[in-house]
Amino acid sequence: MTMTDSAMGHSTPLKLGDVTVTDAFWHAEQELVRTAVLPYQWRALNDDVPGAAPSYCMHNFRAAAAQNARKGAEGKRFVPPAYSYRGFESKPEDPAHPDPDTFYGFVFQDTDFSKWIEAVGYSLAHHPDAELEATADRAIDVVCAAQLDNGYLDTYYILNGMDRAFHNLRWHHELYCLGHLIEGAIAYWEGTGKDKLLKAAERFADYTASYFGPNPGQCKGYPGHEIAEMALARLFEVTGERKYLDLAKFFIDQRGTEPNYFRYEGERDRKDGTADTAWQFDCPYAQAHEPVREQQEAVGHAVRAGYLYSGMADVARLTDDPTLAEACGNLWRNIVDKKLYVTGGIGGTREGEAFSYDYDLPNDTAYSESCAAIALAFFARRMLELEPKAEYADVMELALYNTTLAGMALDGKSFFYVNPLEVDPYACRRDKRLDHVKPVRQKWFGCACCPPNIARIVESVQEYAYTLADDGSTLYTHLYMGGEAKATLAGVPVRLDVDADLPWHGDGSVVVHLDGPATFTLAFRLPGWAGAPTVAAGTIATTGESGASPRVARELRDGYLYLTGEWHDGDVVSFDFPMPVRMLKANPLVREDANKVAFSRGPITFCAEERDNGSNLHLLHADVAKVLDDPESVRVDEFDFQAGAKGIDERGQGEVEPVVRRMVKLEVPAWREPVPETVAAAPAGAEAPAFAPLYADYAPAERKPVTATLIPYFAWANRGENEMTVFLNV
Amino acid sequence: MTMTDSAMGHSTPLKLGDVTVTDAFWHAEQELVRTAVLPYQWRALNDDVPGAAPSYCMHNFRAAAAQNARKGAEGKRFVPPAYSYRGFESKPEDPAHPDPDTFYGFVFQDTDFSKWIEAVGYSLAHHPDAELEATADRAIDVVCAAQLDNGYLDTYYILNGMDRAFHNLRWHHELYCLGHLIEGAIAYWEGTGKDKLLKAAERFADYTASYFGPNPGQCKGYPGHEIAEMALARLFEVTGERKYLDLAKFFIDQRGTEPNYFRYEGERDRKDGTADTAWQFDCPYAQAHEPVREQQEAVGHAVRAGYLYSGMADVARLTDDPTLAEACGNLWRNIVDKKLYVTGGIGGTREGEAFSYDYDLPNDTAYSESCAAIALAFFARRMLELEPKAEYADVMELALYNTTLAGMALDGKSFFYVNPLEVDPYACRRDKRLDHVKPVRQKWFGCACCPPNIARIVESVQEYAYTLADDGSTLYTHLYMGGEAKATLAGVPVRLDVDADLPWHGDGSVVVHLDGPATFTLAFRLPGWAGAPTVAAGTIATTGESGASPRVARELRDGYLYLTGEWHDGDVVSFDFPMPVRMLKANPLVREDANKVAFSRGPITFCAEERDNGSNLHLLHADVAKVLDDPESVRVDEFDFQAGAKGIDERGQGEVEPVVRRMVKLEVPAWREPVPETVAAAPAGAEAPAFAPLYADYAPAERKPVTATLIPYFAWANRGENEMTVFLNV
Repeated sequence: MTMTDSAMGHSTPLKLGDVTVTDAFWHAEQELVRTAVLPYQWRALNDDVPGAAPSYCMHNFRAAAAQNARKGAEGKRFVPPAYSYRGFESKPEDPAHPDPDTFYGFVFQDTDFSKWIEAVGYSLAHHPDAELEATADRAIDVVCAAQLDNGYLDTYYILNGMDRAFHNLRWHHELYCLGHLIEGAIAYWEGTGKDKLLKAAERFADYTASYFGPNPGQCKGYPGHEIAEMALARLFEVTGERKYLDLAKFFIDQRGTEPNYFRYEGERDRKDGTADTAWQFDCPYAQAHEPVREQQEAVGHAVRAGYLYSGMADVARLTDDPTLAEACGNLWRNIVDKKLYVTGGIGGTREGEAFSYDYDLPNDTAYSESCAAIALAFFARRMLELEPKAEYADVMELALYNTTLAGMALDGKSFFYVNPLEVDPYACRRDKRLDHVKPVRQKWFGCACCPPNIARIVESVQEYAYTLADDGSTLYTHLYMGGEAKATLAGVPVRLDVDADLPWHGDGSVVVHLDGPATFTLAFRLPGWAGAPTVAAGTIATTGESGASPRVARELRDGYLYLTGEWHDGDVVSFDFPMPVRMLKANPLVREDANKVAFSRGPITFCAEERDNGSNLHLLHADVAKVLDDPESVRVDEFDFQAGAKGIDERGQGEVEPVVRRMVKLEVPAWREPVPETVAAAPAGAEAPAFAPLYADYAPAERKPVTATLIPYFAWANRGENEMTVFLNV
Repeated sequence: MTMTDSAMGHSTPLKLGDVTVTDAFWHAEQELVRTAVLPYQWRALNDDVPGAAPSYCMHNFRAAAAQNARKGAEGKRFVPPAYSYRGFESKPEDPAHPDPDTFYGFVFQDTDFSKWIEAVGYSLAHHPDAELEATADRAIDVVCAAQLDNGYLDTYYILNGMDRAFHNLRWHHELYCLGHLIEGAIAYWEGTGKDKLLKAAERFADYTASYFGPNPGQCKGYPGHEIAEMALARLFEVTGERKYLDLAKFFIDQRGTEPNYFRYEGERDRKDGTADTAWQFDCPYAQAHEPVREQQEAVGHAVRAGYLYSGMADVARLTDDPTLAEACGNLWRNIVDKKLYVTGGIGGTREGEAFSYDYDLPNDTAYSESCAAIALAFFARRMLELEPKAEYADVMELALYNTTLAGMALDGKSFFYVNPLEVDPYACRRDKRLDHVKPVRQKWFGCACCPPNIARIVESVQEYAYTLADDGSTLYTHLYMGGEAKATLAGVPVRLDVDADLPWHGDGSVVVHLDGPATFTLAFRLPGWAGAPTVAAGTIATTGESGASPRVARELRDGYLYLTGEWHDGDVVSFDFPMPVRMLKANPLVREDANKVAFSRGPITFCAEERDNGSNLHLLHADVAKVLDDPESVRVDEFDFQAGAKGIDERGQGEVEPVVRRMVKLEVPAWREPVPETVAAAPAGAEAPAFAPLYADYAPAERKPVTATLIPYFAWANRGENEMTVFLNV
């Protein structure tokens, strides 16, 4: 790998074990995942959660392991389940008695395990837990026993017959399973030092690397659902094995080229009669409509897209490929300029769980999948690794603090798949167009991508806080999290001791610890929400043993303050970023947000809930004139948020255990348009009650002054079912 | 039939042959249907329109007739087409060579003929045309030859096997076909005096009346798609045969009662294995979820609902049933108070082409089917027949002048099925959620309900203008149409000679012709758009031979001015209804119309098109303060509208021949928010072009004063594909 000029800015995250997070906010989230989500998830993937859709994940691994033990696996002919060649989901006829030798669930059900073990690995890195580790080890034994001798490891084909393995890349998810297995195996190895699963993942990757590739006889396909690209790049970084990077690059280079592999597959299946109606594959859905370097617009399934773009950024960095980096930049610009929700979510339409067209960001029918926000955070961090620019970190932070966390209840026991920006529970029940929108979080999903995805990113959130320049000269602080970070800078071990209280307070300090004076650079991100970079930079002060330190030169570049010079043990970098309440309007080309404003403060986007503001939230108007006239009229209150709600159905959906979390709410000057009164019903037997007319001559609405109470978006729907809106009418 | 107090207010339309329409507006519409639609429609139902979906309608009748001639019909076993038991649409494998003995098309394809013959009958009533009549007679010969000896006449079962006839009432459309056949046969008989088709319809009705009914052994079902109810009521009125009214009443009384017939059918089919996934029928979709007298909310498929409610109103009137009349009143109130578009359209959601929930009236995703507006006009006229109240006529007029006419291009050659209130063609192409919304009219539809429905209501529009009280005392004028109306009032023949120029001018006159003085009542509707009834009534003056006539007493009741007294030949009733431009706002509970206004004048609802106002119509704001301050600031311009557009695809969709129509446009004070400028692209090789940020600190929008040009809604999309909106942001 040559190090050219363009590669000079590359950096990579600090190792998970070298960073701790102890601040109140993220510590609470990580504890929630460790104590609530991980045990729940383990029960879920063992079909042990009453009322929740069974996963069949461990069932399938056990069935495959048993079959391996009988040595019958590879001779079996593939029998596509009768329901559909897409074979998305298979269920036992009698749910109480699944057949022990049959595959059930979605084709990608293996990933339930991989995501769980990944979060477990991250958790164990910081919080040793012998019992959890023993459970994980036993699960790993089962998974590894399911692996075929040739390294192949996807229970759907192992159990249904191997002769059609890797034959339906567009709809089946073997390479997706490979990717998640790699991610999980690396995390568990990092967290415990145990490499049994890592070796299994490498063997599956080796098999895949021999099956796919540019050489004659090798398959020219690529993943239908991306993730293998970024996982293989990571496997290369962990093992140093170039073939993994080559395979990731092959998948990326091959994608969308002509003749189109997915169209080839569909035609082949149509001709041999094995395809159902899905043979005509929607290539943009899987970002396979044109070569990735030519793609200018983010399209298709938003999670797939985010994973692909992340893999592209990884490969661009690791192969120092400027054309691929440029493609990443173009796609980034398209997302951030035209397709990003103010909550950090992406994916405007449920049709394909996908990006909608430019500037189409509906609030009520939004898809904004939790996993898509996570994928955006993945992509953003990798853009930072390519090139440190504050914008990447701003978007990463927005996605992490808002939509990612909104995906999980404050008790860690229920989850959103879809994260709308406006909800009317009555409409959700009455309107099939809103079938995908749930007004309260659900306990678990058969297609359980989001809960474990939230678990794995929360447990590894410290990996998003820092990167170290490849030349070892500079340590970047992207996110301000209370805790410690260790790195080797200019050849010497350095430890940063960070005191911060994000997202509620913008001030804090970093104490630098090192054995003796050394010269290096500490670069600090100037958050976009803090105003002009010069202002934010102005709040950063460095103090050494002798007060203000002339030892350190300051340079402001791309939204980072670079502090370069000789650092002494005990030097302190203090910061006090302004955290004004921002009243935001969307670009006028966003039709759905015309005449509306949203409020944010620091990285947090706020919303109004019916619980605090009454029903018919569309009649609650922000008094924008007053706020513009006197920004102090918006009150910022730190308070104890009381979560807790009874379940709203027999499965306990919407249930949240009583939890208290410190957070900030906004009290915003507003006015309400009264709900028109129903004329009193006439006496029985007379005419039907009359209602206010549907259309009447326009007159300015009556304005009843009120105060709107806004809470952080991530905390909505923790007090039962109710209306919510991020944008307020003006 | 007893005539009780409640029946005293009943009235019925004048016979079609007794009313002519000669005013510029409706004459042009009727000529369009006569010269463009009817010939086109005939070609369409003979599969003779290149590029349009074949109907197979006459093909099926010919096939059934040939089969009858071979005497093999009734012994054939039913063979459900393989694709689906719902059997909605069947197509030949080779479209160029349909099998001459096979049924093709939708299960209700027979109605293409029935709707055409209905419009032909209306047309011939006023405009004799020997060639058209000969064509119609030949078609009738074919249709009658398809009828079985027992009277059954639905080619789907005649050709597929009769043993399952009337066995899938929920999805198949035999009773719908019966209803349309009756309507068509009556119209043709009224228009020509020929009763061959009427006799055939009666025989099918007789067969149906013996098959269904309350007696042991009779089927307890009722129509899946309503219309037979109103058609049978009309057949009773034409023939005096009580059994037809009894059958209509049976269908209505039986609907939605327990045990639910549709659920019974579904369970039966599921058990015997003939059902597909549609066995669980959505009863509210077909208004079969509860007995009709208990229904308070208009739900389900909007056309079905409108037809049912029309039939209910007919039966309520003809059987003098107060509980049924009350149910009609409740459903009317629900529609008008909570579910009616400002264009007179109904049906807020494409999911089931149905009513959405209360106050859910989305503009861009609206369904608002042309047929549903027509069904609403049917219902409204029947409410008028029950009880003359101006509100019914106001809504009827709104539906007729706006959504009904919007369904047809100004050249009569292309049609809308769906009538949105806001269209962005780019969104229609990119957004699957808008698959149902077409930005330009289509040439024809395989499911061709709307074009012939428009044809039949336009050709019979004079039936909506007048009703005569059952006791012969009062002639009601509901709509003001230039032309003549003849009726027998108080036993003497009376002719009204009407001069009017609606919808553009509110003034006109009615000259009363009769042989000698006679005493009766002429009642004139005071349109809601003319302001308070007292104001509108004040513009109505009566002048006899001797100037202002004290012979006539004036009484204002329920929005009608009743003029009662001795009338002389040559008496003149003049009117001059105010026709102010109205700036309307929706009830605040309509979330989609918050901060928006629509403009109307007289019965016409207006809209803004991109062609006149530029793109991004959501950035065009009505200057409501200026309009409120000075209503005269809205200019009303009578002008010649130039229609005409090239087709936008190879099938010529969107093509409109050059046509000039006189109409009125509004010039409204407005302002525009500028479209944010794209920052110029950086030099090649540098970064991607930067766009205005997606979110920015709120500041009041820059206001560029402009004038918004609004044209009548019915005329939109006659100048090619472009943006359109009815509601303007304020």
